[in-house]
Amino acid sequence: MLNGVSEHEPTPHGTAATDLEALRDRMRQFTAERDWSGFHDPKSVLLALVGEVGELAELFQWLPAADAAKLGRSEPLHTRAGEEMSDVLLYLVRLADVLDIDLAAAANAKLSDAARRYPAGSPPR
Amino acid sequence: MLNGVSEHEPTPHGTAATDLEALRDRMRQFTAERDWSGFHDPKSVLLALVGEVGELAELFQWLPAADAAKLGRSEPLHTRAGEEMSDVLLYLVRLADVLDIDLAAAANAKLSDAARRYPAGSPPR
Amino acid sequence: MLNGVSEHEPTPHGTAATDLEALRDRMRQFTAERDWSGFHDPKSVLLALVGEVGELAELFQWLPAADAAKLGRSEPLHTRAGEEMSDVLLYLVRLADVLDIDLAAAANAKLSDAARRYPAGSPPR
Amino acid sequence: MLNGVSEHEPTPHGTAATDLEALRDRMRQFTAERDWSGFHDPKSVLLALVGEVGELAELFQWLPAADAAKLGRSEPLHTRAGEEMSDVLLYLVRLADVLDIDLAAAANAKLSDAARRYPAGSPPR
Repeated sequence: MLNGVSEHEPTPHGTAATDLEALRDRMRQFTAERDWSGFHDPKSVLLALVGEVGELAELFQWLPAADAAKLGRSEPLHTRAGEEMSDVLLYLVRLADVLDIDLAAAANAKLSDAARRYPAGSPPR
Repeated sequence: MLNGVSEHEPTPHGTAATDLEALRDRMRQFTAERDWSGFHDPKSVLLALVGEVGELAELFQWLPAADAAKLGRSEPLHTRAGEEMSDVLLYLVRLADVLDIDLAAAANAKLSDAARRYPAGSPPR
Repeated sequence: MLNGVSEHEPTPHGTAATDLEALRDRMRQFTAERDWSGFHDPKSVLLALVGEVGELAELFQWLPAADAAKLGRSEPLHTRAGEEMSDVLLYLVRLADVLDIDLAAAANAKLSDAARRYPAGSPPR
Repeated sequence: MLNGVSEHEPTPHGTAATDLEALRDRMRQFTAERDWSGFHDPKSVLLALVGEVGELAELFQWLPAADAAKLGRSEPLHTRAGEEMSDVLLYLVRLADVLDIDLAAAANAKLSDAARRYPAGSPPR
């Protein structure tokens, strides 16, 4: 039972449920309730993230490139991909918390920086 | 200049800037303005994500495990880690968009499921 | 049944069984016998390699850093780690074959180059 | 200068230069000469391997899947891919050494096992 969710009930703006800070708080509480914070040094969480990226890769590895998007939008792959991507996100959010990184602020800053460095018409980096 | 930001200005609740849907929208617009959507098939975005995970790993690989958290909370590593974690997040958000996955909903469901499967006192999976 | 093994029987020098070219030939035959070469474009094999690296990471992620070597030299981890590392190697060897890369020559050249660039006393890159 | 190479001069069979044991010995000596063995705990070497896999992924991420093999067999990508694949191999060989794993024996056993489990006509795993 994750008690911490109550403080992140949907607001009138409907944004809370998709909030990175809410996910961070849920992961923090999840970790504390299980006494797992001793396991969550950065290198360990990073390896856990690598493990989940590997599971995500396994879902797509043999799909023809041209069919992968369509297959990934259909079941059963849609649900499976969402699960593995969630695991990646949760470990990423956890790692940011361990490192006192404001992930949303960092991502918004990175994207603003990328927008400056890659003008429209640039090839993808 | 990312025009799409304007609709995601901080609200009185201060949640919009940390919202996964706002990041998705910014990435979607960033991609459209550069005509990069043709490059963003799932296997390509996944490999790009792997590339960013690799850059994140390089920041921590040789740090003593016991010092990694403290070093990662200090400069210059704090900023560098935030940048690489942002790149991982942005490609993850982009992949979710390509696959029509509601990443926040999926992550919250996965965490609720994990909370059921791993009662307090379980070893970390 | 892998017929190709016979030509790589241990020689008096005992080197053949550890030979990268022998592994390449076995993987090539394994692939041909299953008609899998159509699946083995570089991006797919690379994602398969990422999947195996993820499985390897999962074996070590929560181990205390100071105990990981000792635990990895003991069963049951020793055998499990050898299996996942083998999968990584086999996909790497396969990718090299697909790209007409002489992996042993490249690795020896890279190591000679590293020896020049990192004199004794350098910190690890 | 890597002195350890001398004992692995090409034999009349020409196999020594592609030998995994020779690479292991070169990496072992390279590490010893730089006093880096203290850095080479399994989790650190594994993260270094992840870093190199990331660099390899970056070379292929935006290539059209249908062109990737041809491009990877041509310069400049051929040499770059060989370098990154070498780095992956060298860290894999180093990790095996740290864990007392006979990587060639393990890979040959894994492939024999895969040949039994996946009869001709199976879809790729």
